[in-house]
Amino acid sequence: MELGGKRLRPLLTLISCDLFGGKIEDALAPAMGLELFHNFTLLHDDIMDHAPLRRGKETVFKKWNTNSAILSGDTLFVMAYELVTKTTPSLLPQVLELFNDTARKVCEGQQYDMDYEFMAGISIDDYILMIRLKTAVLISCSLKLGAIIAKAPEEEANLIYAFGENLGLAFQLQDDYLDVFGEVDKFGKEIGNDIVTNKKTFLYLKAFELAGGNSLELLKNNFNKRSLSARKKVNIITEIYKELQIDILTRSMIDEYFTKAIEIMSRINIPEDRKQILLEIAGQMVNRET
Amino acid sequence: MELGGKRLRPLLTLISCDLFGGKIEDALAPAMGLELFHNFTLLHDDIMDHAPLRRGKETVFKKWNTNSAILSGDTLFVMAYELVTKTTPSLLPQVLELFNDTARKVCEGQQYDMDYEFMAGISIDDYILMIRLKTAVLISCSLKLGAIIAKAPEEEANLIYAFGENLGLAFQLQDDYLDVFGEVDKFGKEIGNDIVTNKKTFLYLKAFELAGGNSLELLKNNFNKRSLSARKKVNIITEIYKELQIDILTRSMIDEYFTKAIEIMSRINIPEDRKQILLEIAGQMVNRET
Repeated sequence: MELGGKRLRPLLTLISCDLFGGKIEDALAPAMGLELFHNFTLLHDDIMDHAPLRRGKETVFKKWNTNSAILSGDTLFVMAYELVTKTTPSLLPQVLELFNDTARKVCEGQQYDMDYEFMAGISIDDYILMIRLKTAVLISCSLKLGAIIAKAPEEEANLIYAFGENLGLAFQLQDDYLDVFGEVDKFGKEIGNDIVTNKKTFLYLKAFELAGGNSLELLKNNFNKRSLSARKKVNIITEIYKELQIDILTRSMIDEYFTKAIEIMSRINIPEDRKQILLEIAGQMVNRET
Repeated sequence: MELGGKRLRPLLTLISCDLFGGKIEDALAPAMGLELFHNFTLLHDDIMDHAPLRRGKETVFKKWNTNSAILSGDTLFVMAYELVTKTTPSLLPQVLELFNDTARKVCEGQQYDMDYEFMAGISIDDYILMIRLKTAVLISCSLKLGAIIAKAPEEEANLIYAFGENLGLAFQLQDDYLDVFGEVDKFGKEIGNDIVTNKKTFLYLKAFELAGGNSLELLKNNFNKRSLSARKKVNIITEIYKELQIDILTRSMIDEYFTKAIEIMSRINIPEDRKQILLEIAGQMVNRET
């Protein structure tokens, strides 16, 4: 936990609680619970993906062993429940409904993510479904949790959830974008890792959708070629992506979800100036370079 | 889930709820939640222990793969929370406190269990601590959960918890006993598996505590000998256990915890005839052959 991370999810819970007029202190424990939950999913995902690095350091299963990573993940999950449910008793049914639903969806999303690796014919809709479950609902949950703790009307809590879902999709697409078009010093991860591992991201799926004739052959060949060095493969695929304007198309997809999020936010009945902090952070989430 | 098992934990919840005058229907969902939780722990434990069989069938990680076993375990855990918390909202704080505490302790117990494998000098007290966390507290939790749902007074709920802890210890010791002195047809598992895997059970620790001279040498040699066939090793060690009267000593330890449980039960202010069903099941738990 000390390695940091953006602490984005607890931040969103606190800001949302404040937005709806709640006391930030009331949201502290539940907000921390979401960060623990997020870290639990990373711990288990890293085992499943055989990921060697996380936040620039060895992953738990690499540094220790798989058993420790499974069990400390399970324990983090219990601690997440302990903290998320540290709230006014009368709010517990709502909080539990939200958190249980979110936790279940995140697991479901991870299952899709693993399944897609071995499935042919994955569409962009399939991909959006997967990242909605795996990533976006936890962003939504973070925001709605703050609203519930602030005792916001149900309708407004649902609007901030919908805002979060679209923001979360844009956020994940930005991650996919940075994997190819980011700068290594800022991103903090290897550039092109999704390309090296043949991960079916929006960029990959869009490229296969648009490519015809020569560029399709080139795309197929290079994604299949095992002999190709990682660097070379990343360079060739990135060039094809650029030719097909995948960078521009990804940014326009990000904008689409972000605009949808902003539109939903405008329907929340709170003075516009009070929404500024959240909107600023939302903007950073989809324009970040890190 | 369809492979069965004894369904002991949900049974205890329902009986305890009934004992304290609650409606059994109110306890159904939470009781099922505990069975899911138990199965979640088995799923993850089987990965960690590399166990090939469970309830006479291939374990999930063997039949499918480790990733599926991790993730379906996580999902079962979420579903356990969903069901355990399906109760009257006013009871949620108590139910969550109990279940969170139990879940955390079960994880802790599993960690001890794994640690002990590579540690020298484990005492019987260490072992009792481990099985208290890994096994007994879930038995206690099952009983206390029924009491909470029946709105039993806190003092009585705590007594049934203490009853369950002692019963749970006796139950696990019975499991250790059956591993060596049970009959394969009734037990449903290979006899002597704990001996083959050098597991530091009560029997193992007691034998090392009591053995001197010749029998200690024999014990050490046979536990270390890699060349020995499983069958031979089990036979030799079982003979040493018998010479040292480990079977009798284990049964007397079981009796001790069982008697303690019964004594605690007698302090619960409910007519004795109403306690009969629970006492009968408790008796079966520590005298079972299966």
